[in-house]
Amino acid sequence: MKNNAYFNGTFGDFDTMTVPMSERSIYFGDAVYDAILVLDRKPFTLDMHLDRLYRSCELTSISFNMDREALKTEIDKLLSMADMGTTMLYIQVSRGNAPRKHEFPESVKPNLLMFVKSCPLPAKDKRASLLSMEDMRFKYCNIKTVNLLPNVFAAQKATEEGYTEALMHRGERVTEAAHSSILIIKNGKVIMPPLDELILPGITRAIIKELCDKNGILTEQRVFTVNEVLDADEILLCSTTKNVILVYDIDGKAVGGKDRATANKIQELFLKKIYDETGVIL
Amino acid sequence: MKNNAYFNGTFGDFDTMTVPMSERSIYFGDAVYDAILVLDRKPFTLDMHLDRLYRSCELTSISFNMDREALKTEIDKLLSMADMGTTMLYIQVSRGNAPRKHEFPESVKPNLLMFVKSCPLPAKDKRASLLSMEDMRFKYCNIKTVNLLPNVFAAQKATEEGYTEALMHRGERVTEAAHSSILIIKNGKVIMPPLDELILPGITRAIIKELCDKNGILTEQRVFTVNEVLDADEILLCSTTKNVILVYDIDGKAVGGKDRATANKIQELFLKKIYDETGVIL
Repeated sequence: MKNNAYFNGTFGDFDTMTVPMSERSIYFGDAVYDAILVLDRKPFTLDMHLDRLYRSCELTSISFNMDREALKTEIDKLLSMADMGTTMLYIQVSRGNAPRKHEFPESVKPNLLMFVKSCPLPAKDKRASLLSMEDMRFKYCNIKTVNLLPNVFAAQKATEEGYTEALMHRGERVTEAAHSSILIIKNGKVIMPPLDELILPGITRAIIKELCDKNGILTEQRVFTVNEVLDADEILLCSTTKNVILVYDIDGKAVGGKDRATANKIQELFLKKIYDETGVIL
Repeated sequence: MKNNAYFNGTFGDFDTMTVPMSERSIYFGDAVYDAILVLDRKPFTLDMHLDRLYRSCELTSISFNMDREALKTEIDKLLSMADMGTTMLYIQVSRGNAPRKHEFPESVKPNLLMFVKSCPLPAKDKRASLLSMEDMRFKYCNIKTVNLLPNVFAAQKATEEGYTEALMHRGERVTEAAHSSILIIKNGKVIMPPLDELILPGITRAIIKELCDKNGILTEQRVFTVNEVLDADEILLCSTTKNVILVYDIDGKAVGGKDRATANKIQELFLKKIYDETGVIL
């Protein structure tokens, strides 16, 4: 893929472009980002992702003042050069370049970094599996920052042991997967963890909530435990790069499979939403 | 300062050098680092820092295979071009360049990034102050990674409110400052928090321990609380870029000042150690 990357107004290739060594993402992880599913160059729910990106900037006091229309113009330029097919648009805003000092530098200008990469989606009938582990992350999980080393470790461990994803928990409380949200279905109701500082407000999850509300599927937002997941009728794993897939196995033990009707209905509603917005049938 | 930076064998200026956009530190914070006090081009306790750097690589499974002597040769070249005076040598090793994917990439080569910057030390009689706050960090604090956003926020908040540093605690347990270790003196004994996953094994702290052992000052390693800090005879704030300074104030309330003899003795022993190793009188 050529011309698939962008840094502060310059386009080029991800493999050969560079960023300043003084960029604060490099030595402090001082940057926020978002990732958007793009189908045949049409970004899916772009505005919801940009809402979250601007919100991440606010929460980190990164004074990113490019307005949304200007940002969309840059995104359009990048996507117009990118490949067709199923891709992911990645957008990162860092606090900027400065000598290394913990405190926010004065009068610094945020950097905008973007790239597009191929993003093969899992089949919707993929049988996902989870490996449970303690959630080691910080208490700013509500902000989409690049401080992702615990997520990297969790994903690596799950993959090494042959699982699709991690089931992270703080003590008994289930939080998320390494790079996905976890929802459960019990007695026909979709249960989602509360959006506090331990959870990323997932866009896929937000869309599911909206679709459930419109289509008479009950939802509830509350803490749930590892045992509740093991005992759930269905377990949904959802994210921008996998949409909604079902969990069949946790730590090698069969789970779910007791309310395929509701789970499949949610998957269908989600794919219809994608079709309605992008015209692409997945 | 010219030729003060280094990336994979190339020397240049920190302000103008670049790193690949595909560097995993940028989008995952997937890198470890160390920082060393350098006096007139002589690094202080370099081997202790390199021990910790190699240990950080091991703990993150970053396969940095440059041997210590080769690394020291690169450090020598960089320092020979850098300014005299009091500086900080910064060394960062990342997992390397790859397309963005959480799992460790296969056959990737770690990147070595270094720079030297001016490092004015605080006067040894500086009256440090601390602002107490909840420790929001992850549970890999024993590894010196660049996932430092919570430290950045803590330092920024302390500085904004006019304090030298943060007093971070998890519930009642005191952990560290934003970029320093916190030790207390009570009844002539130096008390240090246990080195678990919530604490960075500080080099300055390790040197203090060694100096206390050699000079008949008792030390103890155990958890201590915010109230114990408020009630301590003295509170020591120590790090590579500030050596050992005394805390006079926490949240605007006067603290310490009850065992200046022991505190000053530790400061003197520390400065003598610096002199013995570098020949520089601070």
